[in-house]
Amino acid sequence: MDENDIEVQGFEREGSGALDTKNSLKEPLLKSRINSTSQLAIVGSKVYPIESLDYEIIENDLFKQDWRSRKKIQIIQYVFLKWTLALLIGLSTGLVGFFNNLAVENIAGFKLLLTNNLMLRERYYQAFAAYATCSLVLASAAAVLCAYFAPAAAGSGIPEVKAYLNGIDAHSILAPSTLFVKIFGSIFGVAAGFVVGKEGPMVHTGACVASLLGQGGSRKYHLTWRWLRYFKNDRDRRDLITCGAAAGVAAAFRAPVGGVLFALEEAASWWRSALLWRTFFTTAVVAVVLRAFMGICKGGKCGLFGEGGLIMFDVNSANTIYSTPDLLAVTFLGVVGGILGSFYNFLVNKVLRFYSFINERGPLFKILLVMVVSLLTSCCSYGLPWLSQCIPCPPHMEDQCPTVGRSGNYKNFQCPPNHYNDLASLVFNTNDDAIRNLFSSGSAKEFHLSTLLVFFVDIYFLGIITYGIAVPSGLFIPVILAGASYGRLLGTLLGSLSSLDPGLFALLGAASFLGGTMRMTVSLCVILLELTNNLLMLPLMMLVLLISKSVADCFNKGVYDQILVLKGLPYMEAHAEPYMRQLVASDVVTGPLVTFSGVEKVGNIFHALKVTKHNGFPVIDEPPFSNSPELCGLVLRSHLLVLLKGKKFSKQKLMTGSDIMRRFKAHDFAKAGSGKGIKLEDLDITEEDMEMYVDLHPITNTSPYTVVETMSLAKAAVLFRELGLRHLLIVPKTTERPPIVGILTRHDFMPEHILSLYPDFHHSYK
Amino acid sequence: MDENDIEVQGFEREGSGALDTKNSLKEPLLKSRINSTSQLAIVGSKVYPIESLDYEIIENDLFKQDWRSRKKIQIIQYVFLKWTLALLIGLSTGLVGFFNNLAVENIAGFKLLLTNNLMLRERYYQAFAAYATCSLVLASAAAVLCAYFAPAAAGSGIPEVKAYLNGIDAHSILAPSTLFVKIFGSIFGVAAGFVVGKEGPMVHTGACVASLLGQGGSRKYHLTWRWLRYFKNDRDRRDLITCGAAAGVAAAFRAPVGGVLFALEEAASWWRSALLWRTFFTTAVVAVVLRAFMGICKGGKCGLFGEGGLIMFDVNSANTIYSTPDLLAVTFLGVVGGILGSFYNFLVNKVLRFYSFINERGPLFKILLVMVVSLLTSCCSYGLPWLSQCIPCPPHMEDQCPTVGRSGNYKNFQCPPNHYNDLASLVFNTNDDAIRNLFSSGSAKEFHLSTLLVFFVDIYFLGIITYGIAVPSGLFIPVILAGASYGRLLGTLLGSLSSLDPGLFALLGAASFLGGTMRMTVSLCVILLELTNNLLMLPLMMLVLLISKSVADCFNKGVYDQILVLKGLPYMEAHAEPYMRQLVASDVVTGPLVTFSGVEKVGNIFHALKVTKHNGFPVIDEPPFSNSPELCGLVLRSHLLVLLKGKKFSKQKLMTGSDIMRRFKAHDFAKAGSGKGIKLEDLDITEEDMEMYVDLHPITNTSPYTVVETMSLAKAAVLFRELGLRHLLIVPKTTERPPIVGILTRHDFMPEHILSLYPDFHHSYK
Repeated sequence: MDENDIEVQGFEREGSGALDTKNSLKEPLLKSRINSTSQLAIVGSKVYPIESLDYEIIENDLFKQDWRSRKKIQIIQYVFLKWTLALLIGLSTGLVGFFNNLAVENIAGFKLLLTNNLMLRERYYQAFAAYATCSLVLASAAAVLCAYFAPAAAGSGIPEVKAYLNGIDAHSILAPSTLFVKIFGSIFGVAAGFVVGKEGPMVHTGACVASLLGQGGSRKYHLTWRWLRYFKNDRDRRDLITCGAAAGVAAAFRAPVGGVLFALEEAASWWRSALLWRTFFTTAVVAVVLRAFMGICKGGKCGLFGEGGLIMFDVNSANTIYSTPDLLAVTFLGVVGGILGSFYNFLVNKVLRFYSFINERGPLFKILLVMVVSLLTSCCSYGLPWLSQCIPCPPHMEDQCPTVGRSGNYKNFQCPPNHYNDLASLVFNTNDDAIRNLFSSGSAKEFHLSTLLVFFVDIYFLGIITYGIAVPSGLFIPVILAGASYGRLLGTLLGSLSSLDPGLFALLGAASFLGGTMRMTVSLCVILLELTNNLLMLPLMMLVLLISKSVADCFNKGVYDQILVLKGLPYMEAHAEPYMRQLVASDVVTGPLVTFSGVEKVGNIFHALKVTKHNGFPVIDEPPFSNSPELCGLVLRSHLLVLLKGKKFSKQKLMTGSDIMRRFKAHDFAKAGSGKGIKLEDLDITEEDMEMYVDLHPITNTSPYTVVETMSLAKAAVLFRELGLRHLLIVPKTTERPPIVGILTRHDFMPEHILSLYPDFHHSYK
Repeated sequence: MDENDIEVQGFEREGSGALDTKNSLKEPLLKSRINSTSQLAIVGSKVYPIESLDYEIIENDLFKQDWRSRKKIQIIQYVFLKWTLALLIGLSTGLVGFFNNLAVENIAGFKLLLTNNLMLRERYYQAFAAYATCSLVLASAAAVLCAYFAPAAAGSGIPEVKAYLNGIDAHSILAPSTLFVKIFGSIFGVAAGFVVGKEGPMVHTGACVASLLGQGGSRKYHLTWRWLRYFKNDRDRRDLITCGAAAGVAAAFRAPVGGVLFALEEAASWWRSALLWRTFFTTAVVAVVLRAFMGICKGGKCGLFGEGGLIMFDVNSANTIYSTPDLLAVTFLGVVGGILGSFYNFLVNKVLRFYSFINERGPLFKILLVMVVSLLTSCCSYGLPWLSQCIPCPPHMEDQCPTVGRSGNYKNFQCPPNHYNDLASLVFNTNDDAIRNLFSSGSAKEFHLSTLLVFFVDIYFLGIITYGIAVPSGLFIPVILAGASYGRLLGTLLGSLSSLDPGLFALLGAASFLGGTMRMTVSLCVILLELTNNLLMLPLMMLVLLISKSVADCFNKGVYDQILVLKGLPYMEAHAEPYMRQLVASDVVTGPLVTFSGVEKVGNIFHALKVTKHNGFPVIDEPPFSNSPELCGLVLRSHLLVLLKGKKFSKQKLMTGSDIMRRFKAHDFAKAGSGKGIKLEDLDITEEDMEMYVDLHPITNTSPYTVVETMSLAKAAVLFRELGLRHLLIVPKTTERPPIVGILTRHDFMPEHILSLYPDFHHSYK
């Protein structure tokens, strides 16, 4: 991808002089516009240009010819392939999800076993050294991968997937290298004991897998598969990646319905009924794959990966009959979750801004930061349990107490036999096991209040400082941990008022904190229900999610939306800002409009591609090809480059469309994967060629979406977002002007752009 | 609603003569177009004109003025009211759902008790007489209500709600009378022992409740509430009705998440993230209300309404570990479900066509038909168990066997003591109890194979002949019953191959048949999971639903889509038909275009309203108000009527917009409930007025959506449907023509219309 991909489109035909009343306002902004960084995104602390995606069907003559000639068998092939790809995405994501769990359980289990053995022999300093070293090595491995091989793999990945599905292709966010680093970086990061989850990274992994499968193989290694050529467009890729994101959630939480709802509620910007159907299929495949592998691994065949490897917390036994005081307690929990959640988002935002100063200094600084945080985490995990007192094991336990040899419940830590350290059961443990302990029911007195408080503070702040370092880091697990701990804390405190089990309170606390940070509703609810396998909790869960989201929405945006803003990704919101109703479409376009004739001089095209960064050019037929200026449609930069490369030029200004139609097939213009298309430098245009003509009609999209210049910006924005557009042409209201008076792109709808043109609206904009 | 509401909009400016190449084709079609019945819908066997809904925001000057002047407090009020309405919808729908169950359980229970008592005394003929008479009376009551008071209340109601949310307002489908009849008709119909469910009617009821609450009170009874004036538009009503539909499902199945998904997958045509959030809240309220009432009714305080009143089938105890043979068995079940489901749809379609001949003869015929079906149903319910042998009660039963005195499991029927009649447990029972019996696990030998077969055939065909008679009749329960019976049948047959419980097979059979008839996926899956409270079944359920839907889709459409077609509702599909890519927007518009000047003569407006049936008119400014013809926007018939009624005319052709802005407020133009707006006959325009002028600018929507005439019809259709439009203006591609060359309405996208214009496409259309 090069700088040319930056989208800037102008308002006015050069020198036409129409609408001059507003020129005075806009002229000085043109320069700042092209230099503006709002079309640049921050990927792994570096700034890259971003590209918009073409989700629109480009209905040019070549496409129409291809469409008419499509045989029944090709359509069946296409549908069959679509489902096969969905199946493959499900299989691969399920496999990766299983492998991830297997590796984490074994590596983290080994680390904990090693430390435990040293502790049993009372070699406490050696134990710490072993623990911290293991963690540091794992953390550094993850950091090296992230810093040197794929900076885009750091972080959760959910904001990037969200941006992609909104129509923004940032640098290498779905590249194979990102996939590789995401998988291994996540394993190392989680095994290193960071307060991070593998859920966000799994979503990103699923999306990367889907993108890779939908690329139609690699041209570089001659691995292109002819059949996949129909999928060489952004539209089908978007559908596949939506499936991939759903599969990721399904694999991370073993929550197939939750995965579908996550894709619908959080990830996707466009949704069709058919997609519901296909994501559902993909997540069902994931569920079956996971189940099959867990069947294989039964009985310790896979090392330390046991039954509990994939999170699935059974709180079935808990009492789920509730009364009014319980509802009040739950309401209170929701309010607390909302406040803590929005504060969490606020702090994450601050920390990310601070980290960006460190990270942009280079890979070495990134790795150093990771190492510092790793050491801090190790100190907390190993050091905090010493604050806690030893508790005698409860009598008549089904579980072994204290647990020996496995990374389970009731940690012995420094305690004498038949005692356990309750804080160690939480902090000196894998995150999954800690959650399981917090959610455990029928064990009201297992944790001291002070333990829960210390753990909450520890996790809350470690979570905040860990997100943003150069390892793949999911936010779900830290948030669930913190939420469950304060939920259990409140549940224990309110024990006299409410008859609900503290384990249930932990679950509701997790829900409230998730609602407060991520602001999802239905999908979180279903994910948590699938995790805990208890549907009777539904009304309470809904209540707590609704309250916490409402409370948190009063303060700031959801954490993923904040990260999108920080990364500079021009995300199109579903709703228009209120001030957009007071502007019309023509108010926000800036810069000169570059148009082509239906049969255009090669030199003009080459020059326009060279000096502008536009990605779409209106094509307007002029006499002698028509009586008056007549709109043909819109031609894309990428298509022009293919056409110029083909060198089907003519000496005279003639319609040579039929020649071009013979020379090219529709799939010659198929959209290559990001950054793989033809570049201007690849062209070999001679001086002689420059004077020749080329007929643009065959590649002109005759069905561009348009709005009248008097259309309110709010409605234009809704149109743009709902249909997933890249370019929106503006037609004049009178017949006196040329047929097209401007182009709207994603950039023109961004609040920063509009507010820079109309600073008066600033006061009405929060 | 009168005939004027039929939407017909034309293509060409009268006498402009442009595009004459196509006129020859279109001219003769104009007449047939206006007389065409495709804009007429069948409601309760009568034909009514339908009206499209305005889901677009009408951004005229009055709206903009109102928008700018909205104070912060008003916005907060609006948001608060929205949530209050959602709460009220949840409360009312929950209440109605509970009342419905309470009434049905008590009436049907009383009927069964009476019959049982007579049978215990071996008065078999008297018992039949009592049973049949009770049923007949109840059935007739339901039929009288439906036939005389609200014909729109017959049937499921889901297709009508679907159509409304797609933008089609058919006659009185959401009227208060429909609501009343739907509630009581459904109670009587279900209690009469028909093979009908209360689920579809609950969805319709929820939608009616929402519509009523969103009307802002009744103007007729001076019950308008000033605060509700912001909701007097189709857009907000649509959101409320989506909530209502979700609440209906939630109340019918006690499935809050399923309700949300049902609204998303099946009911709604437009969806926003905010809606997910609000429907979720509504269904949560429903769940809480139902739970509260069930708590009150505990311990027999509500007559015969016990714990099992609201369906909730617990199959938790069943074994849910499955192996490859089980998967094969389930696959087979899916295929069978798909075939049976599509055949069911085929037969329902045939029967509905046949019934329409009877029903259109008048209310008396409707009632007679209901009585015939009721007698037939009674004969089957009472007669069939005599075919079955008596089975000795299994020893060591927790349940009472045979059951005495309640409408439960293990019916005694004609059997000696300690024996039960297994067929009677299914057919001579309430539908809910029959489903519970079929789903029951750990009771492999409870039902004979022959019993299940007889029951399946009985229910399959009774279900088909019952849908379409003049009672509110849901399709869910008949389909679940038939599916569960063949599922259990197959499960028992395959007992040697598969280790799954027959109860589980019954559940999967129900899923497969639901998938085969209704073609929903995620929502059905979640509803069934919520019904049975067993999440571990998820992968199997997904598999069976996917297979049955895929198989059934090869044969015909889903049952609701078929009913939409039968009723003549012009439903806009989410995808465009393939041949639409070969046409452009201007190809399908017919008839002359009627436009107004910015300042127009009252007589012209009055005349245009009188002679055309158009609902939208482009407004074009002409000299002296502009240099050349200039598009102002689109004005709606309903707004023109209000403006004419206000009589703010001027003698000269002058811009009097500011006067009008002082005279009218935005909410004067608020859309009244269906059929309540001002009619042309209500106007009192004198001869003198006719010669005066009126300024249309203040009420002209300056942001109409437009497409270029060369836009492919497929893309225009996607635009129309995705944005929920009523009118789509066509702008010319050249500057030689007037600024607007046609209007597209819903009718222009209907396959019948397009295929009547271009019969050549017929062969490519299935």
